[in-house]
Formats: sequence, structure tokens, C-alpha cells
Amino acid sequence: MTGTWPSADTPPPSDTQRVRLWLRMLRATRRVESDLRERLRDAHDTTLPRFDVLAALHREPDGMRMTELSKRLMVSNGNVTGLVDRLAADGLVARAAIEGDRRATRVHLTDAGRATFEAQAPTHREWIDEIFEDLSTDEVAVMIAALEKLLHDKESR
Amino acid sequence: MTGTWPSADTPPPSDTQRVRLWLRMLRATRRVESDLRERLRDAHDTTLPRFDVLAALHREPDGMRMTELSKRLMVSNGNVTGLVDRLAADGLVARAAIEGDRRATRVHLTDAGRATFEAQAPTHREWIDEIFEDLSTDEVAVMIAALEKLLHDKESR
Repeated sequence: MTGTWPSADTPPPSDTQRVRLWLRMLRATRRVESDLRERLRDAHDTTLPRFDVLAALHREPDGMRMTELSKRLMVSNGNVTGLVDRLAADGLVARAAIEGDRRATRVHLTDAGRATFEAQAPTHREWIDEIFEDLSTDEVAVMIAALEKLLHDKESR
Repeated sequence: MTGTWPSADTPPPSDTQRVRLWLRMLRATRRVESDLRERLRDAHDTTLPRFDVLAALHREPDGMRMTELSKRLMVSNGNVTGLVDRLAADGLVARAAIEGDRRATRVHLTDAGRATFEAQAPTHREWIDEIFEDLSTDEVAVMIAALEKLLHDKESR
């Protein structure tokens, strides 16, 4: 073992603060996701992955390559393809060929997709405000900074 | 809309701090999960859900009901049943009838399951220490407290 722990005859602490943090992050994230999933279904008859695709595309008026979209959402290419197929069948997104690269396409919101997202986004934002309402401005700021440090570290590796 | 936002002619901020926090929480959690998934596969030839089941059962020497286990892991009963079936086939967990409730069983670690988890847990803890190494003690403490507040609020609703 190459860790920073004491030798084998001094057992490591049974639960470090970092492990506690990770377990709570995981649990809180799952809880919030499950809450949002239920609210999206009840209020907008949609799913979290569908909402996430519309949200990602809404930030990119020129559309995104499928591989970019998959990376952004951290889901597999296969899953994104299925989602985009269904959103396209519903008229919310469309694909366009990329000049000079005949194997790749960009996907972008249609007008209907933009309108759908813009109708859903305000309620989504209200829910987040409500879910996180008991965290102070300072707590939120510390957490954002810490998570960005974590994400930056992992992206630069 | 019942939110706390200004009226419709003053558009809400495009990205509140709470939404920023949530997007970063989600992204960081997925990133760490994907990192741990890869490390568990490479180092111990196992998956995150299998590891999570062993970890949950390791904390409960008397075992847990399937419904408790499902709730603890925040995955569906069906998924937990499949996982437990496979872990039982590998001899790592076993089921026992619950006296007075003939429809329910408790699942617990076997000696082999306990040994497997105890061999995997130290590396898992080292990885967490490494992944979160750039967060200060204060950042970790603030985040734990904030996440516990969030979890407590949601559990008490």
C-alpha cells in the first residue's frame, strides 16, 4: 500500500472526514436527483435525462456534437443517442451534418425544444432554490469553490 | 408560480448560486463515482454497487432487511435483489428468515464477504483521501455540515 496511513499495526481511523464527506455527497446528490425526478414527472411529464439534454443544448445555440453532449452529461454515447432519438421524434431537437466531417452530426434545439426548456427551467430553478434554502450564502460559496477545485483537479489530470 | 422571484417583467437571474452549486455537486459526484468505478474494477475486479452492498452490510452485523438495504443504497428493490442474488451465488452474502415474518428475509455478510470487504475497504479509503486531498479541513467540515443539514431537511419532510 502506498497511502499516507500509519503502518499496519496502527489501524487507520475507521471513518475519515473525507470518507464521511464523500458518503454524504453521494447520498445528498441521489436524494436531490430523486426529488427532482419526481417533480419533473409530476409538473412537466418529463424525465431528468431529457431535461438535462435540453439544458445542455440550451447553453449552446450552435448545437453540440454527440460526443461533446455525452461528455458534458457524463453518460455513455449509447444512452445519449437513444435520448436524442426520442427527443428528435418529439420535435424538440434536430441533427445537422457537420461540414467536412461526414460521419459526425451536431444536435441542436428546435424552436419547440427551446420553448419547452424555457417553460420548464423556471420551475426547476425554483425547486433548487427550495431544496437548498437552508444553506447560507457562505456555505453555498464554500461548497461551490471546493467542488470547482475538485473538478478542476480531476479534469487537469 | 409560487416562487420567491421577482414578477415576470423582471427576469430571474440566469444562474443562481444554488443552481450553480447543484450542477457542480452533480458533476463532481458523477466524476468521483466514475473514478471509483474504474479503480474498483482495476484493483478488485468488482463494481461500485457490489462494493456499496458489502459496505452497507458491514455496518450492520445483524444484517438488514432487503427493503432497508434498498432504502440505504437509494436503489430500487429490484436492483438490490439482483445484486444480492449474485453476491449470494459468490458466497459473499447469505439470507436468513426473519422470525414471525415469513415473507421477509434479512441479508447479512458471510465470513468470506466480510473478508472481501475488509480487503477492499482500505484501498477505497485511500482513493477517497487522494481524490479529496486538495480540500482543506475547514472546507471538508463546512461541506459535511451543509450536506447533513440538507439530508436532515429532506428526511424529515
